[in-house]
Amino acid sequence: MQRTEIESLGEFGLIRRLTEQTVLRQPSSLLGIGDDAAVINPEGKRVVVSTDMLCEGVHFDLSYAPLKHLGYKAVAVNLSDICAMNALPTQVTVSIAVSSRFSVEALDELYAGVHKACAVYGVDLVGGDTSSSTSGLMITVTALGLVDGEQAVSRSGAKAGDLLVVTGELGGAYMGLQVLEREKVVFQSAPTAQPDLSGHEGILERQLKPEARTDVIRELADLELKPTSMIDISDGLASEVFHLCASSGLGVKLYEDKLPIDPHTYKTARDFNLDPTLCMLSGGEDYELLFTISQDDYEKARNHPKLSVIGHMLEDKDEKTLITKNGLETPLKAQGWDGIQQSNKAEES
Amino acid sequence: MQRTEIESLGEFGLIRRLTEQTVLRQPSSLLGIGDDAAVINPEGKRVVVSTDMLCEGVHFDLSYAPLKHLGYKAVAVNLSDICAMNALPTQVTVSIAVSSRFSVEALDELYAGVHKACAVYGVDLVGGDTSSSTSGLMITVTALGLVDGEQAVSRSGAKAGDLLVVTGELGGAYMGLQVLEREKVVFQSAPTAQPDLSGHEGILERQLKPEARTDVIRELADLELKPTSMIDISDGLASEVFHLCASSGLGVKLYEDKLPIDPHTYKTARDFNLDPTLCMLSGGEDYELLFTISQDDYEKARNHPKLSVIGHMLEDKDEKTLITKNGLETPLKAQGWDGIQQSNKAEES
Repeated sequence: MQRTEIESLGEFGLIRRLTEQTVLRQPSSLLGIGDDAAVINPEGKRVVVSTDMLCEGVHFDLSYAPLKHLGYKAVAVNLSDICAMNALPTQVTVSIAVSSRFSVEALDELYAGVHKACAVYGVDLVGGDTSSSTSGLMITVTALGLVDGEQAVSRSGAKAGDLLVVTGELGGAYMGLQVLEREKVVFQSAPTAQPDLSGHEGILERQLKPEARTDVIRELADLELKPTSMIDISDGLASEVFHLCASSGLGVKLYEDKLPIDPHTYKTARDFNLDPTLCMLSGGEDYELLFTISQDDYEKARNHPKLSVIGHMLEDKDEKTLITKNGLETPLKAQGWDGIQQSNKAEES
Repeated sequence: MQRTEIESLGEFGLIRRLTEQTVLRQPSSLLGIGDDAAVINPEGKRVVVSTDMLCEGVHFDLSYAPLKHLGYKAVAVNLSDICAMNALPTQVTVSIAVSSRFSVEALDELYAGVHKACAVYGVDLVGGDTSSSTSGLMITVTALGLVDGEQAVSRSGAKAGDLLVVTGELGGAYMGLQVLEREKVVFQSAPTAQPDLSGHEGILERQLKPEARTDVIRELADLELKPTSMIDISDGLASEVFHLCASSGLGVKLYEDKLPIDPHTYKTARDFNLDPTLCMLSGGEDYELLFTISQDDYEKARNHPKLSVIGHMLEDKDEKTLITKNGLETPLKAQGWDGIQQSNKAEES
């Protein structure tokens, strides 16, 4: 494969190459890349803004994350934040800092993913910056979205008795990561071995190429179902439940048997000797939406194929309880990924 | 001085510490830090968005750039991009990636500069991200601004015959950098030597703590003077003139004797054996505004203390000419900083 050095293009040449295929699809994008700033016409709506950084060696590992997927993911996870405000994403800016280790062709791949995500979600790439870095790759995405008048939903509006709802299925992204890390270890000890990823495509995609639930935001609007509070699941269900509780000043009761898990994720967790419930609670990176709704809206959510009612909010902010499948009450904990491994070790010992 | 390790606070603790003094001043800031995204009410106006990255070892050198100034500069240079659209800045998001080399106290300093800039310009810090990095410090700022209906000014609206106008004075930031680099070399060869910066405060401030010309944007609105095209001067006057010419499909004639330079900048350039005109044309980082106006608006600009009319736009896009003080016509060149040094060496040899 050809390798073109970044410096051979210069900064302006590189920006032109990476952004020349950009098309503006949103009527609100009045002016995009190529000026001092982009100009957006919100057409009477409110504007929602979110920024995320992805750093090599911290948020991703290029030994198993393809650059195209990484570009896609960098955009999608920001769009997920916009969805978590009950808004629909409309524009992104993408900034990258790269060392000379990366070729122009590598950045083409990264931007192919950025452009793909923009096309899939109908959002416009309207700006950004490119810089050299002394080491590694760093991507910063800022996403903008629009929301009608009073429809924005923060983390703080839940009331006692509200039902807790989650979209899709949980734990898949975490189990995808476990498979990737297992194969990386195998590869490091026997570099001629072929990675054994077959059958795991679904959970690998959950990890490497997550999606933002714009579909759910549209369906909630169609149902005239406005959540009372909302957040997206980046760190793990338990941790996000804690954020909603803290922002709304409430407690929570969760039901283990209501937590949605895909059968393949469940089986893979068992194969890895991990507790599937712990993977759902603490795995993270699912980018599903977690929200509360008034009990009056229960009928709208009850049989919706993308929604699971998993618990309810409590007046007592010190009570955060998980009701296990056996009917036992245990305190809900947010342990994060390290916690899963330690808990697993404790179980083994 | 105390040194607190970043990891002792954790990500959420660090964010809380760096942002707890944040106040929202803009009526358009409905929701700031602490949710999935910020919510802005543009109140019928258009929204202008710009993003810039500053990377250690590329855009700044911590051996002479104090962290507080760096935080201030990171915000100010983004606000300058908003001004260059004829908009007034209203919000910023600030994201940082830092290695463990930096202490919490160092980041306090950086954010003191961020908060200072927000206070000076009346803009609100409404979001961002913090991450660890494998090496060095990287800052990404996204700035938002608002502009009335049709008042946004791009780079592409200039017409032949329009007058070219620049704000303030040029070359100061570049000469400030020369002083800092000279003292760094002295310090490296004799670490006990005290840096000799006295008398250079003005140009050092131009380099380390540049300002965005929000004052000029307000005054242009008061004068009912809408530029036909506009850009801010980050790379150097000549390079920015070329951008305006390219975007508007025009040529230009510049007059050397009209270029504004501060007497101290002029004298320092001479002391460094540099051509003051070249410093103005190619020095960069002045963050002044460069714009074109219709000849009908000449009277509004002519005696304005902050504005200099330095030339006019030509129909022939291949003609880019500098009329020297001696009345000679020479082709205008955009050489960048390296070019200045080489040109200086050529002059010396």
